[in-house]
Amino acid sequence: MDRNAPVGVFDSGVGGLTVVREIIRQIPGERIVYFGDTARLPYGSKSRDTVIRYSRQIIRFLMTMKVKAIVVACNTASAYALETIQAETELPVIGVINAGARTAVHATRNGKIGVIGTEGTIGSGIYTEVMQRMKADIEVFGKSCPLFVPLVEEGLLHDSVTDEIASRYLSVLKGRYIDTLVLGCTHYPLLRSTIRRLMGDEVTLVNPAYETAVELRELLAARNLSREEKEPLLGEQYQFFVSDLAEKFTDFATAILPGEVKETRQISIEEY
Amino acid sequence: MDRNAPVGVFDSGVGGLTVVREIIRQIPGERIVYFGDTARLPYGSKSRDTVIRYSRQIIRFLMTMKVKAIVVACNTASAYALETIQAETELPVIGVINAGARTAVHATRNGKIGVIGTEGTIGSGIYTEVMQRMKADIEVFGKSCPLFVPLVEEGLLHDSVTDEIASRYLSVLKGRYIDTLVLGCTHYPLLRSTIRRLMGDEVTLVNPAYETAVELRELLAARNLSREEKEPLLGEQYQFFVSDLAEKFTDFATAILPGEVKETRQISIEEY
Repeated sequence: MDRNAPVGVFDSGVGGLTVVREIIRQIPGERIVYFGDTARLPYGSKSRDTVIRYSRQIIRFLMTMKVKAIVVACNTASAYALETIQAETELPVIGVINAGARTAVHATRNGKIGVIGTEGTIGSGIYTEVMQRMKADIEVFGKSCPLFVPLVEEGLLHDSVTDEIASRYLSVLKGRYIDTLVLGCTHYPLLRSTIRRLMGDEVTLVNPAYETAVELRELLAARNLSREEKEPLLGEQYQFFVSDLAEKFTDFATAILPGEVKETRQISIEEY
Repeated sequence: MDRNAPVGVFDSGVGGLTVVREIIRQIPGERIVYFGDTARLPYGSKSRDTVIRYSRQIIRFLMTMKVKAIVVACNTASAYALETIQAETELPVIGVINAGARTAVHATRNGKIGVIGTEGTIGSGIYTEVMQRMKADIEVFGKSCPLFVPLVEEGLLHDSVTDEIASRYLSVLKGRYIDTLVLGCTHYPLLRSTIRRLMGDEVTLVNPAYETAVELRELLAARNLSREEKEPLLGEQYQFFVSDLAEKFTDFATAILPGEVKETRQISIEEY
């Protein structure tokens, strides 16, 4: 395996770029090939079978790009498809759920953890399963928040409507006296200040993107796969591919990543 | 062409069932094959190329079902793909936009028409183009309402949040003194009472689903394609296919159609 090969990262759309941002911060020398399935988003309301089928196509595409490891930067795909694709792929594959779950289990003092995410992620019960495997007596309270992604994509990050919807979604969790809340969807960190205000300062907010980048760095080091060359890469260090060339992608990418995203290429993911 | 063959109807998801409902009311003898692209919805935020590619696959699937005519029961697909697929298909194909546009042009007294729809439909300018072709001095004011579909799908049909969002979206149109408003997305008739209250009784609301069924009935009659047998059909009169087997589809279908929808079959639309 070529240590200078890129890391593959994928998501249903733009949200996974929050994971890319953390990888760039923590292991700036690595090349990254990102794929956002913008033609078929959102994954959160789709069935397990469909999400697995889509994830397999993306893995096949990333393999053609000669990646050395793969990060599933989408909570729904991590929930439904991670085990399947790990079993089918020789490369190391990590998702966002394990890292987020581990941080939450370490952070909680009263053993009550809340998780917010898409219908798919919450309905799968995956966070509960993973966290209780780490520590059996953890209580996990899940709440799906289907309007958060459309509200973020409409740009209503700081808005009375978003406050009202968030207040309804989160009131259930407040009633459970959780002391830790996992932001179990890559869009949700963009609503962090609203969630922070509603939940209060005593609740620890966990962003799995950060911990996933830590896990990737450790994995590459352990397998002797960290990039050797230490000088900065020029040009093609970060490559972005999408299944639908909506302008939103480039705008969002430029807004959250360091440096301008100059080129995004469209591929026919269905052919993989 | 077999006069007893079914009519094919498709949409990005469940919304097109509002068109099916009108067809059942107006031409109850016809067989219908419905396809909802539930795995790849929504279409409203996707690019023209992607919507055309998806529509072509669906046409190929409907052809395997030996349909005699096709209704594009999705405003976005009608906006982006109708002309292309009409040129490529020997069967008669109708969309929802012409019918809705014609009704609005007949209904307006002051020549100012509003259109609400997805980003794709409004961004395409198709309603403006079609209505001004029918009557050159019509003024058309379009407004995309990206949160309406998620709000409907979240069940917030009568809710203060929906009122607030609708009020923001519609205030622009109220300022234009329109006297006619086209509900240019198949989900929007479900928000009719909210829209009615905000726009006032003096504004005519146009639901293209109704007019599309009228156009289909006339088209079948003119081409000698109306079903001959007049006795009621049993069993397989209505067949429902989807690309993702979410339960939502059957729930929604049963809620809005006469009679229970017993079976919905999943197909791999990407293989067509």
